[in-house]
Amino acid sequence: MRLSQLFTKTRKEAPKDETALNAQLLIRAGFVHKVMAGVYAYTPLGLRVLENIKRIVREEMNAIGGQELIMSSLQPKETWEITTRWDDDIVDVWFKTKLKDDTELGLAWSHEEAIMEMMKQFVESYKDLPVSVYQFQNKLRNELRAKSGIMRGREFVMKDMYSLHATAEDLDAYYQKVIEAYKRIYDRLGLGDDTYVAFASGGAFTKFSHEFQTVCEAGEDVLYLHRDKNIAVNEEVLDEAVKELGISKDDLEMVKSAEVGNIFNIGSEKSEQMNIRFTGSDGKEHPIYLASYGIGITRVMGVIVEKFADEHGMVWPEGVAPAQIHLVRLGADEEVTKAADDLYTKLAKAGVEVLYDDRDAPAGAKFADADLIGCPVRITISNRTLAEGVVEVKRRTEADSKHVKTGEFLKHYHGQHA
Amino acid sequence: MRLSQLFTKTRKEAPKDETALNAQLLIRAGFVHKVMAGVYAYTPLGLRVLENIKRIVREEMNAIGGQELIMSSLQPKETWEITTRWDDDIVDVWFKTKLKDDTELGLAWSHEEAIMEMMKQFVESYKDLPVSVYQFQNKLRNELRAKSGIMRGREFVMKDMYSLHATAEDLDAYYQKVIEAYKRIYDRLGLGDDTYVAFASGGAFTKFSHEFQTVCEAGEDVLYLHRDKNIAVNEEVLDEAVKELGISKDDLEMVKSAEVGNIFNIGSEKSEQMNIRFTGSDGKEHPIYLASYGIGITRVMGVIVEKFADEHGMVWPEGVAPAQIHLVRLGADEEVTKAADDLYTKLAKAGVEVLYDDRDAPAGAKFADADLIGCPVRITISNRTLAEGVVEVKRRTEADSKHVKTGEFLKHYHGQHA
Repeated sequence: MRLSQLFTKTRKEAPKDETALNAQLLIRAGFVHKVMAGVYAYTPLGLRVLENIKRIVREEMNAIGGQELIMSSLQPKETWEITTRWDDDIVDVWFKTKLKDDTELGLAWSHEEAIMEMMKQFVESYKDLPVSVYQFQNKLRNELRAKSGIMRGREFVMKDMYSLHATAEDLDAYYQKVIEAYKRIYDRLGLGDDTYVAFASGGAFTKFSHEFQTVCEAGEDVLYLHRDKNIAVNEEVLDEAVKELGISKDDLEMVKSAEVGNIFNIGSEKSEQMNIRFTGSDGKEHPIYLASYGIGITRVMGVIVEKFADEHGMVWPEGVAPAQIHLVRLGADEEVTKAADDLYTKLAKAGVEVLYDDRDAPAGAKFADADLIGCPVRITISNRTLAEGVVEVKRRTEADSKHVKTGEFLKHYHGQHA
Repeated sequence: MRLSQLFTKTRKEAPKDETALNAQLLIRAGFVHKVMAGVYAYTPLGLRVLENIKRIVREEMNAIGGQELIMSSLQPKETWEITTRWDDDIVDVWFKTKLKDDTELGLAWSHEEAIMEMMKQFVESYKDLPVSVYQFQNKLRNELRAKSGIMRGREFVMKDMYSLHATAEDLDAYYQKVIEAYKRIYDRLGLGDDTYVAFASGGAFTKFSHEFQTVCEAGEDVLYLHRDKNIAVNEEVLDEAVKELGISKDDLEMVKSAEVGNIFNIGSEKSEQMNIRFTGSDGKEHPIYLASYGIGITRVMGVIVEKFADEHGMVWPEGVAPAQIHLVRLGADEEVTKAADDLYTKLAKAGVEVLYDDRDAPAGAKFADADLIGCPVRITISNRTLAEGVVEVKRRTEADSKHVKTGEFLKHYHGQHA
C-alpha cells in the first residue's frame, strides 16, 4: 500500500472530545474515524488490523471444530421473551426498533437465544451433538457511557462461539479445549505474557465464569493475581474465589486489567427455558448443554494499542500489524525512487505486506508517521544508503537502526524478522 | 468439509411461509436459516458462497483503486438531516432507535452522507482527489414487504463504493471504469451473458442512473432490451429513454429482470448540500463530485439460485460454489472409506474445495443432496469404481456421468474442470 494513495492522513491532534488513548492514537494515525461516542468506522489501516486479528481467531476456532456462520442483527422479540432477556430491566443494553406495522425488533447485543432457536431445527438426536458454531458479528449495545474508545463501543465486532452438548461432562471437556485455544490466540496476538484466565462472576447459571484478562492500565477491571500459582481473580468475586480456592488475600497482587475474552458455562438452563431438547440414546428427551465464548475483536485491538504504545505512537505485534514493513523513501530523485519502488515490488512479490511512504515529505515527518502508525520494522532508502548498497533497518521497539546489505535484506528477510 | 460434521441438514420441505424459490432451496439445502421475513442467517455453506462473491467483488474493486473500509451501522441524525434524507417521508426504509438519553439514531440503509461526513476530514485540496472507497456492509432496510427471500431483505450484505472527484469529467471517466469492472464481476459470477447495463431512474440528481439487470423470471423489474444495439432500458424510464436514445419501442423485447447492481452519478449536489469543499489548484473552494456504486451481495446470491436452479436443486457457477467438488462415498467398508478419505485429503492438499459426503446414507439420498446443494462436479467412489480403478465424475449441469481413471482425475483435475 502506497501512502501517497491512501486517503487517510496522520494528524498531530486527536479530537478534543476523545479521552481514550487508544482512540486518540488510532484517529491520529488514520486507523479509525469517529462517527459518534462509541461508534467508529475502520479505515483501510484499521480494517487490516481487524482482519489480521480475525484471521488468527478464525484459525484457532476452526482448529477446534468451530463452524463459521453469520447470524442476523435484527432479532424478533419472541425469541428473547421466553428467557426474559427481552426485558430492558434485565438486559439494559438493547437497541430496539420497529417494523412498519409496529412489530418491535431488537438489534443483537448477543446471540445465545438466536443460536438455540436456530439449532432447534438441526439438533434432534444425540447423534447431532456436540456442535460448535461461531461468527464475527457487528454487535450493537446501548451503553450509557462510551468513553473508552474502541475498548467499549456501542457498535463493535465480536467473535462469539456457542457449543452445544449432550452432557455436562462433554461440555466441560470442550470448555477446556476452548480455554487452550484462547491461550494460543492471545499468544499469537502478542498479549500472551500478560493475559490471565480469571475467575469472574458466573451470572445466572454458574458460580464462576472465566474471563481472559490482560494486565493493562487502561482496563476497566481490577484483577487479583497470585503469580506463583498462576491464579487470577476478578475483584467482583474476590471473597468467594479466595474461599473456594483456598488462597490468602495477602498473596494477591492488585492490577488493573482489561477483559479480552470471556466464556460462560450456561449449562442446560437455556435449553430448558426455551424447551429445546434432543432425543438421547436412551430414546428419551434431554435438555442441551450450552456454553458461549466471546472475544471482542475491536476491544482486543484497543487493548493492544493501549498496552504497547509509547510516546511516539502505536507499536503493533507482528501478527496483527497493518503491514510488516514500513518502507520510507527519502528524496525523490530518479535513482532513489527506482530503488524504493523496486524493493516495494520485490517484497510484495515475496508476500510481505509493506506500507510504502512514497510521498514527497521531509524525513522528520516520515519518521514520525512511521512511529505513529507502528509497523514492526521501518526500512529507509536514501541516496546515502544506495551509495553504500544497504538499507537502513529499524525495529519499532528499538531506538537504534542498523545498515543491512540490500541483497542480504531481501534474501533473509523472513529469517531475520519473522 | 465433511458432511458428517456439518451441523446443517438438508430438508425435503421448506417452511410453508417461504414463497421465494431462492429461499426455499437455500433453506432446504442448509445454506441459510430464516430468522423472520426478510432476515436470514447464513450457515456455513451459505457463508462460503457469500465469501466467494465478496472475494470476486473485492478483487475487482481493488483493481480500480478502491480502498476497503467499514463504516458504522449506527448513524447520527445530524449527518442525514442536512440533506433531508433523515425524513421518513423522503427515505421510507429507515430503522430508527434511541440512545438512553433519547437521542435518535438511524441504522444505515446506505452511506453516502456518512462517507461525505468522514471525507470532510481527509479531502482538503485537489491533491487529495480522486479517492474511491468501498465496504461490505450489513445494511438494514425497513421494507414494508419482504417476500423475495434473500433477493430483498430487511437485513442484507451490500458492497457499496463511493468515488469523489474534483471535476465532473474525472468522475465520468472513473464511472466508465466502474462499469467495466462491474462487467468483469458479473462475468466471473457466471451472470455475464444475461446481465445488461440498463438505463434507469436517476433519482434527484441525474436524468438516468445505470442499473445492472440480470434477465431472470423471479426479478421484480421489467426490462426492455434492444439486443442488436445491446441497449437495455428499465420500464420506469422507457418513454424518456426511447426518445433520448433515438430507438423505436417496436424493436424492444420485454423481459423480467433482477437488479444486481446500480451506480449513481450524484454530481456535486451532496457536497453543496453538506457544504463540504476542497481547495482547487486555483486556490478557490469547489464542491466535490460524488458517485456511488452498489452491488447487493446477498441479492446476487439469490439471483444466481433463481437463474440456474433446476428441478433437482441449485446449480452454482464455478466461481461462487461452496465447493468445487461434491465427493460421495458409497458404502462404508474399510477399502472404500480409505479410498474416499485418501482422495479427499489429496484434493484438499491441492487446494481444491471439497464437500465430502462421508455419512452412512443410501446412494439415492446422497445423490439427491448433491443435486440440491449444487456443486459443479460430483465424484462418486464405490466398490465398483474401485474395482475398475476409476472415479465416477458427473457435472451438475449434465445428465450423464463418466468414469475417469483415479490417477488421471487427480493429475488433471485442474486442467479438466477449471
